[in-house]
Amino acid sequence: MMITGQQLINGQWVQGEAGQYQAVNPATAAFIEPVMSYASKAQVHQAVAAAAEAAPLYAATSLEQRAEFLELCADEIMALGDVLPERVALETGYPKARGEGERARTVNQLRLFASSIRSGEYLNIRIDTALPDRQPLPRPDLRYTNQPIGPVVVFGASNFPLAFSVAGGDTAAALAAGCPVIVKGHNSHPGTCELVAQALHKAVQKAGLPAGVFSLIMGSGREVGSELVVAPEVKAVGFTGSLAGGMALFQLANNRPEPIPVFAEMGSVNPVVLLPEALEQNAETIATGFVGSLTLGVGQFCVNPGVAVAIHSPALDRFCAAASAALAKVPAGVMLNEGIAAAYQKGTAHLSEQAGVELVGSGEAVGDKAGFCTQAKLFKVTAEAFLANPHLQEEVFGHVSVLVSCVDEAQLLAVVRTLKGQLTGTLQATAAELATQAELISVLRQKVGRLVVNNFPTGVEVCDAMMHGGPFPAATDARFTSVGTASIARFVRPICFQNYPAELLPPELQNANPWALPRLVNGVKTSAAVEA
Amino acid sequence: MMITGQQLINGQWVQGEAGQYQAVNPATAAFIEPVMSYASKAQVHQAVAAAAEAAPLYAATSLEQRAEFLELCADEIMALGDVLPERVALETGYPKARGEGERARTVNQLRLFASSIRSGEYLNIRIDTALPDRQPLPRPDLRYTNQPIGPVVVFGASNFPLAFSVAGGDTAAALAAGCPVIVKGHNSHPGTCELVAQALHKAVQKAGLPAGVFSLIMGSGREVGSELVVAPEVKAVGFTGSLAGGMALFQLANNRPEPIPVFAEMGSVNPVVLLPEALEQNAETIATGFVGSLTLGVGQFCVNPGVAVAIHSPALDRFCAAASAALAKVPAGVMLNEGIAAAYQKGTAHLSEQAGVELVGSGEAVGDKAGFCTQAKLFKVTAEAFLANPHLQEEVFGHVSVLVSCVDEAQLLAVVRTLKGQLTGTLQATAAELATQAELISVLRQKVGRLVVNNFPTGVEVCDAMMHGGPFPAATDARFTSVGTASIARFVRPICFQNYPAELLPPELQNANPWALPRLVNGVKTSAAVEA
Repeated sequence: MMITGQQLINGQWVQGEAGQYQAVNPATAAFIEPVMSYASKAQVHQAVAAAAEAAPLYAATSLEQRAEFLELCADEIMALGDVLPERVALETGYPKARGEGERARTVNQLRLFASSIRSGEYLNIRIDTALPDRQPLPRPDLRYTNQPIGPVVVFGASNFPLAFSVAGGDTAAALAAGCPVIVKGHNSHPGTCELVAQALHKAVQKAGLPAGVFSLIMGSGREVGSELVVAPEVKAVGFTGSLAGGMALFQLANNRPEPIPVFAEMGSVNPVVLLPEALEQNAETIATGFVGSLTLGVGQFCVNPGVAVAIHSPALDRFCAAASAALAKVPAGVMLNEGIAAAYQKGTAHLSEQAGVELVGSGEAVGDKAGFCTQAKLFKVTAEAFLANPHLQEEVFGHVSVLVSCVDEAQLLAVVRTLKGQLTGTLQATAAELATQAELISVLRQKVGRLVVNNFPTGVEVCDAMMHGGPFPAATDARFTSVGTASIARFVRPICFQNYPAELLPPELQNANPWALPRLVNGVKTSAAVEA
Repeated sequence: MMITGQQLINGQWVQGEAGQYQAVNPATAAFIEPVMSYASKAQVHQAVAAAAEAAPLYAATSLEQRAEFLELCADEIMALGDVLPERVALETGYPKARGEGERARTVNQLRLFASSIRSGEYLNIRIDTALPDRQPLPRPDLRYTNQPIGPVVVFGASNFPLAFSVAGGDTAAALAAGCPVIVKGHNSHPGTCELVAQALHKAVQKAGLPAGVFSLIMGSGREVGSELVVAPEVKAVGFTGSLAGGMALFQLANNRPEPIPVFAEMGSVNPVVLLPEALEQNAETIATGFVGSLTLGVGQFCVNPGVAVAIHSPALDRFCAAASAALAKVPAGVMLNEGIAAAYQKGTAHLSEQAGVELVGSGEAVGDKAGFCTQAKLFKVTAEAFLANPHLQEEVFGHVSVLVSCVDEAQLLAVVRTLKGQLTGTLQATAAELATQAELISVLRQKVGRLVVNNFPTGVEVCDAMMHGGPFPAATDARFTSVGTASIARFVRPICFQNYPAELLPPELQNANPWALPRLVNGVKTSAAVEA
């Protein structure tokens, strides 16, 4: 597998016309071969035009054809072989095993989405048959299904070079929905992007689909990314990244002559609430689990626990001692790129300077380690100081967390009430505590997309039941998830056929129900045919 | 039933603090008793605070409790008796039968939504049970359901004083979803608003719900409406009205510190494509049907057919002659208010002045009729002129339409391609034409939320299969409908419970499935209990 530094535009590998750059190995800060290229605005528009041309053709494929295409994508990614996790490791500083694990997640995700669209669930099919004799007015035959929204732009994330990138969750969801995809790859791992795009390109060819179904564009977010979002042919955007980046795209999309939905997942501080009885019983185990979640992948997860909340007690002191001991064994970690490492240094320094903030423990010092290495940290602050200082709620991306120490239950509730929208909220609690903390649970539930009990927030399962999203600023629209099969709903829109000739209806709406899908027919869910 | 001119805020009827006004009878231009009041900003915030306080309590009600509440709302609206359709007639100029029909639609809608939430469909329940032995990592128990998004602001529409107003589609959907509602009533029919609010107030009391579940605020859209949309406690907005009004709210909501979804249904020109063979066979019948749809309710429908497209032919001349004859019998119609009538006069005058536009026919002249009376009109323009002039695509609210005459099939396709997003698109076509017009149908399908064949667009059935929405500018988000049971999805957001104690799960997620709802359990749709 050759990495060429080119863009994939309408099925052609072409040199970018807007300059060259090289990726950087975060473990050494050295440049990585080969020289890569940035796409020009004209090239962006070629990709967009190809996607628009492909859109109706791709929309007309059957569920089975699209499912097989997704499976081909998975097969072709696996067929890249070891070069892929090796390139991931080179470009991200993650161990090779992480790349392998993420590759498994990525191909399983594609296969799960294939199986999910075969089930037709996401079509949300509804049929109300004609009532010609109804008084005072007859009812016409009405049939509702979901159709693809049109070309989708996907912004690859820095922290998941495979699972939230070129063939990651957003791409899988959009392709599953029947939408052509243009990926704006992340510049931290362009070789990884290109390899995966090669796999998808082969899958497109093998499936006999129009070339415009998938393109890969590299370039700066501000220029190429903006150009993609304002292109009139683009009908939706998927994004995973920072609040600033997500909001810039959101505002850009809302101010187009035709506004389009931007689904931006922008991370959060994922509060972990440690209740007293649980701490009393398990301070040390909880501390070890917490530090494990905090430092996994150098803390570079959207669901990294950035805030913990507890009531001051001897058990909390035990928690702090155990957390400090566990942290001391955590090696300095290589972060994804220079910018992220610098933001982490600045963010942790800023945290440490806030009134009332003290250090509980640290990981191994960076020392003379090469590359973009940083030290894990756990800070502590009083609830009083936390409540007075909104900066302490800001996410610092990486392996750092702030423990908020409260004087009593009322103050703990006040802290939880002050939290903004979150991807997740976690409770460490005994059964008795859960049974008596109805108000706390109710408040936390209003803030989050996923409510976790006696687990930690890291580990986002790709399945039907996952919700990865949440009230703002966790995401731009809490009504959708960006992980799991329900995420397909972001990229479809309903259409209703009224009094439509039976033989011209899309297969899923035909009386015979040729794909044997579940449908709501005259108010009853059934997979049976409709009697003509 | 007394109409007092007061606001309903947190279960109290109170005088508005921001001035007084009177409704106007559009049929006579005379003021209607009694004097009404406008709410102050402080009163807006009382209503919002009450809604926020009621939100978790109302969210905790069971599906059955909410369904019964919706049915109570319907019962109480019917219990108002004749005073309601009479007041509708007085304030809107609609005949009393229209008010009665719309009341039936409104109460049937509430009852349908009650039945729909009992089915649990909208919860989209997904359960993936734990796989503790899975390698390389165990899977935790994950359970997904939809919960209410929070307090919803509903803007009543001018043209549906009942069905898209105080207890109309948006309110029914939000209440069904478990969200408290604050209605900003339309100032054209404040007495109607108050009567319906009295009914809902009684229903809230009889159901024993918190008073904040429903409030009615009257006031100017610019002041009171804006204040409602920017209130931090408000989590979503439903709106039916003009493009300018909808976009103002949309931008306001997107620029909040916490952006919230605005579902604005902003109308469209609802193109009707008349294919040659159908015209040849049925020019006269189609013309009569078209004029009927165009002039129904003085054309004051979001789905009013504002543009027709056809190829020039002798059959089209027959259509024009028949339409002109049918129009000549259409009485001058009373419009909803002075502003709407003035906009209609201005809009039709503007149309008539555009290059190439000629009059095909008119309804009865206004003469010396009292009130806000206008004359129905059908214009004709060449496709060449239409394609050159975007003004001709702008909606003129009321009983006016523009017939676009094309020289051939290619030009007809070009006209359809140039159309913006629409609520509906209609084809009048023979079976043979439908079978051979795949490209036209594909293009039209990309533009619309509902595709109608050999019917007319007016008549929006409230049912499971309705899609009332569409690509911008028909609506702000094509992924949702504002009519039919699928509209409930606008006001919910998913939440996932991870490793959650069985006994504390919401009933719909419990293993026993006490409400016997359909659920996606480990990938299979079933109403069976989950084996523990």
